[in-house]
Amino acid sequence: MRQSQLFTRTRKEAPKDEVAKNAQLLIRAGYIHKEMAGVYSFLPLGLRVLEKINRVIREEMNRIGGQELLMTTLQSKELWEKTDRWSDEIVDNWFKTELKGGSEVGLGFTHEEPLTNIMRSYVNSYQDLPRLAYQIQWKFRNEERAKSGIMRGREFLMKDLYSFSTSEKEHETIYEKVAKAYETIFKRLGIGDITYRTFASGGVFSKYSHEYQCLLPVGEDTVHVSKEKRLAINKEVMNDEVLNDLGVSEDELTEEKAVEVGNIFSLGTRFSEPLGLTYKDAEGEDRAVIMGSYGIGPSRLMGVLVEAFADDAGIIWPKEVAPFYVHLVSITGGNAEVEKEADRVYEMLQEEGIEVLYDDRDARAGEKFADSDLIGIPVRLIVSEKTISAGGVEMSTRGNGKGTLVAESDIIERLHAK
Amino acid sequence: MRQSQLFTRTRKEAPKDEVAKNAQLLIRAGYIHKEMAGVYSFLPLGLRVLEKINRVIREEMNRIGGQELLMTTLQSKELWEKTDRWSDEIVDNWFKTELKGGSEVGLGFTHEEPLTNIMRSYVNSYQDLPRLAYQIQWKFRNEERAKSGIMRGREFLMKDLYSFSTSEKEHETIYEKVAKAYETIFKRLGIGDITYRTFASGGVFSKYSHEYQCLLPVGEDTVHVSKEKRLAINKEVMNDEVLNDLGVSEDELTEEKAVEVGNIFSLGTRFSEPLGLTYKDAEGEDRAVIMGSYGIGPSRLMGVLVEAFADDAGIIWPKEVAPFYVHLVSITGGNAEVEKEADRVYEMLQEEGIEVLYDDRDARAGEKFADSDLIGIPVRLIVSEKTISAGGVEMSTRGNGKGTLVAESDIIERLHAK
Repeated sequence: MRQSQLFTRTRKEAPKDEVAKNAQLLIRAGYIHKEMAGVYSFLPLGLRVLEKINRVIREEMNRIGGQELLMTTLQSKELWEKTDRWSDEIVDNWFKTELKGGSEVGLGFTHEEPLTNIMRSYVNSYQDLPRLAYQIQWKFRNEERAKSGIMRGREFLMKDLYSFSTSEKEHETIYEKVAKAYETIFKRLGIGDITYRTFASGGVFSKYSHEYQCLLPVGEDTVHVSKEKRLAINKEVMNDEVLNDLGVSEDELTEEKAVEVGNIFSLGTRFSEPLGLTYKDAEGEDRAVIMGSYGIGPSRLMGVLVEAFADDAGIIWPKEVAPFYVHLVSITGGNAEVEKEADRVYEMLQEEGIEVLYDDRDARAGEKFADSDLIGIPVRLIVSEKTISAGGVEMSTRGNGKGTLVAESDIIERLHAK
Repeated sequence: MRQSQLFTRTRKEAPKDEVAKNAQLLIRAGYIHKEMAGVYSFLPLGLRVLEKINRVIREEMNRIGGQELLMTTLQSKELWEKTDRWSDEIVDNWFKTELKGGSEVGLGFTHEEPLTNIMRSYVNSYQDLPRLAYQIQWKFRNEERAKSGIMRGREFLMKDLYSFSTSEKEHETIYEKVAKAYETIFKRLGIGDITYRTFASGGVFSKYSHEYQCLLPVGEDTVHVSKEKRLAINKEVMNDEVLNDLGVSEDELTEEKAVEVGNIFSLGTRFSEPLGLTYKDAEGEDRAVIMGSYGIGPSRLMGVLVEAFADDAGIIWPKEVAPFYVHLVSITGGNAEVEKEADRVYEMLQEEGIEVLYDDRDARAGEKFADSDLIGIPVRLIVSEKTISAGGVEMSTRGNGKGTLVAESDIIERLHAK
């Protein structure tokens, strides 16, 4: 895409009330727009990143047999009363509104209830199980404080997968399969090494649940980590019993700040029982379905990636989620030959199917480089009088600014090799 | 995908309170689930269709230079007060809710206000215009009656494009370009011949707006159509002046029921003025940006396609939006050879990148055919003892049930030829 056509531009400053680094950088670079605290629109560059994160998640969910659906935002009171989660005293972050005629409805903050209800139409016998169903859908949570940019939204995107099993044993197998898929996702997003499966409070149906905690100073959570053993314990559940269960001693652990980027829960029959989701076993007996739920927040992850990789000059996107792979920057200084050469490189990259943002604007070199640093596209190609007379283009990566001259005929090969 | 793994199945009956044919068929075939009147979840098959409709629309919007973004559901009161559209007396279908702390917020029923506000950050001079920006986002409208299935939702998907121009003349050019793109979309979806650009009430800034009305007996709108002249007039604006403007006489027109599948509006400075979206012209003078808005509802379109093409046996999807292109049906009668052959055809289709739903279930032939008719996938391939001994598979199309025998080696070529 030609940057001269992109409707956003970089901005010198984010709104004054924006304190989070992720939102400041994303706003300044033109990725998002703040509508109100914790509520952000995704501008063209931002939507591209978000969709790429979604694609990674979707691929890994499909690989383990997840079937994608899309449930609604509007939620009927009757359904949530059955599980005792309608009352504001029990769930304190509902947004609620009213249909014409007076019926109260809520805005989905999670979707166990509606999916369990949907599955009642489709699960009869043990032969209909196990099943994995997921969606990537906006959630609404009426947060008191929303100061972490897109890392804690009142309106935020969530991938929520739910599993439906006949037995605890079958459930455990699925739970571990999802855990593996989550590790693959975080690895693909470039945060595999700083993200830990973390023991957390389990609720009624299992001793522990697991969070995926990404170690970042900006995190709101505190975890105790063993980097050698690749395990972590949420401070909230840290005690002698947990240490004993995991076979670690306290002095192996260090305390760190972290951001929760995913969580996986065993739900047992917490939802299937009150909502009547049962199956007939091989003997024809009715049994309640065993469930699990597994969340990852794509919009939060986008903020985490900014926090994890940005430097003083701006954002540094991992290749897999960058809005474009290449930032082609022309420094024409009014020389039409340079423009022609840059246009030719642009067309060549497009023909090769390489995603490229082409800074074809009539602007000073310093401004273009500063914008490019801020936007954070992985590979930069510079076309200027200097590079043309040296016989090629200058190639550098966003993390490591050092440029090398590459002959035009070698560009594609070099890009594929990266 | 193997149908034995799909978590939905066909159902004998839709909910009793569901009166619309589109929703009845879509529920019975497992495409959607009714959460409440006018609020439907999209199940795996349904989400596939919806995403394919979105893809067609997206391609045509991108082709004319549309840039995709995604705005929020939660809307701030202050913004909508500036355009005088916050009051329930003026806009009677708002859903409203409250942030913790008491601020009222609304759920977006359209997005002129937030996008106009966003553009204020990015439009300075005439050189920043024109711009086309669009999103595919869920809208919320508190409808009194919602009885038309997914053709009139309280929560429904909308593609809304907005144009920003320096002058009326520039605006007119864009308006016609969008109109052309809309015609391409309806043609690609198979309803081009029954969908008419229809003159409708224009509001303050132009004499007419245009609706795209799809002629269907189930429609809630009434239009006067000239099939020869390919034009239509909404009954609401039908009078001598309009007839005169368009150069048609009343006796050239027939009255028909229709469903509005799109609309395009000239907005003039209705939003740019109160929200302060201005640009500096070539002389350095501040001028208000001229806007247009252009809507198409993908979820409504999905309902329209069902209404337009279904027969007594079920849905008939146009190829471009079908959840799968091929429905492979095995009739094994317990014969393992048939299963092996069907498996082989399934693998071959997948290797060729052909989207296939494989009915590998252990069920009677009659049940499988009835389900296949209901689901409505364009091409059916049957593998049975009979077809194997005749040397191939039976191929038929959903609209025209006549099967012909095709040798296994010819299947791919025949599918590509369709």
